[in-house]
Amino acid sequence: MARVVVDVMPKAEILDPQGKAVTGALQRLGFAGLAVRQGKRFEIEVDGEVTDERLGQIHDAAEKLLANTVIEDFAVRVEETA
Amino acid sequence: MARVVVDVMPKAEILDPQGKAVTGALQRLGFAGLAVRQGKRFEIEVDGEVTDERLGQIHDAAEKLLANTVIEDFAVRVEETA
Repeated sequence: MARVVVDVMPKAEILDPQGKAVTGALQRLGFAGLAVRQGKRFEIEVDGEVTDERLGQIHDAAEKLLANTVIEDFAVRVEETA
Repeated sequence: MARVVVDVMPKAEILDPQGKAVTGALQRLGFAGLAVRQGKRFEIEVDGEVTDERLGQIHDAAEKLLANTVIEDFAVRVEETA
């Protein structure tokens, strides 16, 4: 079982109201000087080995389903499993 | 400007309906053999240097605000910025 992680974040030029809300809440709680952007993290357990073909598929899946590429960037990476 | 990343994922023993929905949708789109769990990713830009004290604060903030520790695990890590 291998694990692939897909990180999806709002593009830099896109407003991020969730992140803004979190930043504001942190300030009110006394945590100053932190600017937060909020995105999504998908942990994907892959049956069998993670070949280049499999990674390509996951890249396609991320583009089609996991991220809205109009407003979000995504990154696919293989994570070492202990 | 340094960047700290907080990953928040549903605990292993907790059902993850979002992840289940994504897994099902991937299967219907023809991507078989993938099991997805969905969590959140927070990218935090820190003013100044990331000292151990600062990291401790962010850890507290993650515990109080970013994660619901009853049902979610979180991990804090410093990310290299190019």
